[in-house]
Amino acid sequence: MSIMTLAEAALERIEGDEGRLQAYAWLDRDSVLAEARRLEDGARRGPLSGHVVAVKDIFDTVDMPTACGSPIHAGRRPVRDAAAVAAIRAAGGLVVGKSVTTEFAHLTPGPTRNPHDTAHTPGGSSSGSAASVAAGGASLATGTQTAGSIIRPAAFCGVVGYKPSFGMISRSGLSLFSESLDTIGGFARSVAEAALFVGVMAGRSDLAPKVSQRAPRLAVWVTPDAAMAEAPVLAELERVAAVAAAAGATVTALPDPGGWQALIEAQQIVMGWEGVRALAFEWEVHRGLLSDALRAYLDDAARLQPEEYEAALEVRRSLGGGLLAAIAPYDGVLTLSAKGEAPLVEAGTGDPHFCRVWTLLGGPALHLPTQRGPRGLPIGVQIVGAPGRDRSLLDAAAWLEAALARSGAA
Amino acid sequence: MSIMTLAEAALERIEGDEGRLQAYAWLDRDSVLAEARRLEDGARRGPLSGHVVAVKDIFDTVDMPTACGSPIHAGRRPVRDAAAVAAIRAAGGLVVGKSVTTEFAHLTPGPTRNPHDTAHTPGGSSSGSAASVAAGGASLATGTQTAGSIIRPAAFCGVVGYKPSFGMISRSGLSLFSESLDTIGGFARSVAEAALFVGVMAGRSDLAPKVSQRAPRLAVWVTPDAAMAEAPVLAELERVAAVAAAAGATVTALPDPGGWQALIEAQQIVMGWEGVRALAFEWEVHRGLLSDALRAYLDDAARLQPEEYEAALEVRRSLGGGLLAAIAPYDGVLTLSAKGEAPLVEAGTGDPHFCRVWTLLGGPALHLPTQRGPRGLPIGVQIVGAPGRDRSLLDAAAWLEAALARSGAA
Repeated sequence: MSIMTLAEAALERIEGDEGRLQAYAWLDRDSVLAEARRLEDGARRGPLSGHVVAVKDIFDTVDMPTACGSPIHAGRRPVRDAAAVAAIRAAGGLVVGKSVTTEFAHLTPGPTRNPHDTAHTPGGSSSGSAASVAAGGASLATGTQTAGSIIRPAAFCGVVGYKPSFGMISRSGLSLFSESLDTIGGFARSVAEAALFVGVMAGRSDLAPKVSQRAPRLAVWVTPDAAMAEAPVLAELERVAAVAAAAGATVTALPDPGGWQALIEAQQIVMGWEGVRALAFEWEVHRGLLSDALRAYLDDAARLQPEEYEAALEVRRSLGGGLLAAIAPYDGVLTLSAKGEAPLVEAGTGDPHFCRVWTLLGGPALHLPTQRGPRGLPIGVQIVGAPGRDRSLLDAAAWLEAALARSGAA
Repeated sequence: MSIMTLAEAALERIEGDEGRLQAYAWLDRDSVLAEARRLEDGARRGPLSGHVVAVKDIFDTVDMPTACGSPIHAGRRPVRDAAAVAAIRAAGGLVVGKSVTTEFAHLTPGPTRNPHDTAHTPGGSSSGSAASVAAGGASLATGTQTAGSIIRPAAFCGVVGYKPSFGMISRSGLSLFSESLDTIGGFARSVAEAALFVGVMAGRSDLAPKVSQRAPRLAVWVTPDAAMAEAPVLAELERVAAVAAAAGATVTALPDPGGWQALIEAQQIVMGWEGVRALAFEWEVHRGLLSDALRAYLDDAARLQPEEYEAALEVRRSLGGGLLAAIAPYDGVLTLSAKGEAPLVEAGTGDPHFCRVWTLLGGPALHLPTQRGPRGLPIGVQIVGAPGRDRSLLDAAAWLEAALARSGAA
């Protein structure tokens, strides 16, 4: 299919869904077709040729406004592409529009709805990205995660979401919330495409998962607070572990390494301390243009004391180090992605609870969609690993994806 | 002195020197006076009231263009202040202008000259910041360091330069070069003022050095390649260590913990790998507007392989961890800042060689100016510490500054 044909088909799908989904903060048919024409005319063929890419609206784009889900930045026109966007374009990807983000990628929702049931949230903060890939609009979409902003919307929308190891993709040209947590990643329809996409943004060709015959060494961890989750997602975690074991993986129940609750609290302190500093301009100069929820959050965060932040960093080092040592022997650890199916939009974008620790520790995390829950919305599992171990995590996830497909229930 | 009077006096000094020094990329008398009037009219009194601050031209400013030393960004008008700039203004600091940076804070020089002898470089990349503080224009100035871009210009210009621990100051609104190296810091006329300034940008009030009676535990390290340095800076390192010991500090010669050369090479690989990714847009889309030197550097860096980058990260973890363990018992380690006095401008901005490892390891580093060298240009010493140990490093540096002043030779 020519790139023009592809672009026209994608635009038709996206525009047809947009009234219902509101996944895009900016979408301009003419400029997309002009860009498709330029791609077709030749300069750029690459690993993303044929892919239609939605870009979360906190990544700077030279040809589209970048509003960060906030009236403070409404209509802002960057003079450059974020580094990740430049890499996508250099690889032949067609950027189709800017997908809706919650306000500064925090909790205050945008207008986007869940494509599986528009009464429900797509999750956040990468709301529009997950929704558009789920609806078949974009084939790939960028996301960022500070607490659970990739894994949660992937879970709620039923797509693959992959947050690579911290630091793998340059945040140049990204609106920052938390220096030591914000991580760029992506949404796709399969593990292989997610790996390809993140590999392009990271500028590394070695991430493509090998569809290996070797069954992975997996652990399964039902975290101490798993009772916060709904029964169907807990049951699904057990089912996926059983499918993996039946297909030949070694699946070990992880003994509790301790520290889980302290690590969750540490993530919250680190995020607040760093967030109120990153948004200093908005908080000092444009308080009135912040949502009530974000302003209250930042006001609270501003009261954190240096010794609380330092203690949180120490928890990350010590208890986090212990947890990482406990998971080091495994290619991946199966655990919960979210508390359940997507909540109703009135309840917000959902709770990043089960993602916080994995973001804090900086290792790779991937959501694998596997099933529908009792309300007909997607559920799945999260698979996580130690920092820098992306290749073995991706191999394990691709193996598991194939095993689930063979088992007939994914 | 009223803020208006202060602003007028500072502008007079700066404008009087500007023809000779070319320290500013942007300077506008009227807007500075208008800002001074706003400060005087009342809203903002804070710890930086009375300070005139130069901002390196890679920090976004809402009221001044931000060109990053590159024609690609010439005239760029951000819609917000970088977080560090917002913090400076909220603390009552008067931003007087944008100081000259080398191209994207790499090596290609801007026009700035050394105030002590305009035939010589002020160092880079924070060239204008160091030069303006040294010339008495700004009392404080922001800088960033990826290899040696704070310590080196501080050394060449004879001012205090303080690079705090990695991650202490939010880089929101900063043009990035290297995700895991770029660190914001500042220039000042004393250790106490540098600590105050960095404390404001970091949003933490606990950094002010205690002028304690307790003499610090110091080490002195003449690194294995110290023969690259000129004799006078080596002699000065020995002299400062002797003054410290005579004033009551314990001064231990650090046994070589090993790994120095491998760590220098690792810093170079990390910087190149991350730099070519952060500048993806400029490198892909505006190659022709990059300097020949930066383009050649990025072209080289683009050939680095993932396994080279991963090996460099492993060297940082393993050998770097060993070095950090070796320096952990000390409040600070005295070592070289630069190879010698500032070179002639024709030779570029100097070599960050002796700073690379300390930036790679992420601990605090401070340049203390102490003397003139044989060519009449400033020399001094660097004092470094382990990550997160900023308070004890600042206490030690303030103690040493006072001891040198008492000894009559600083």
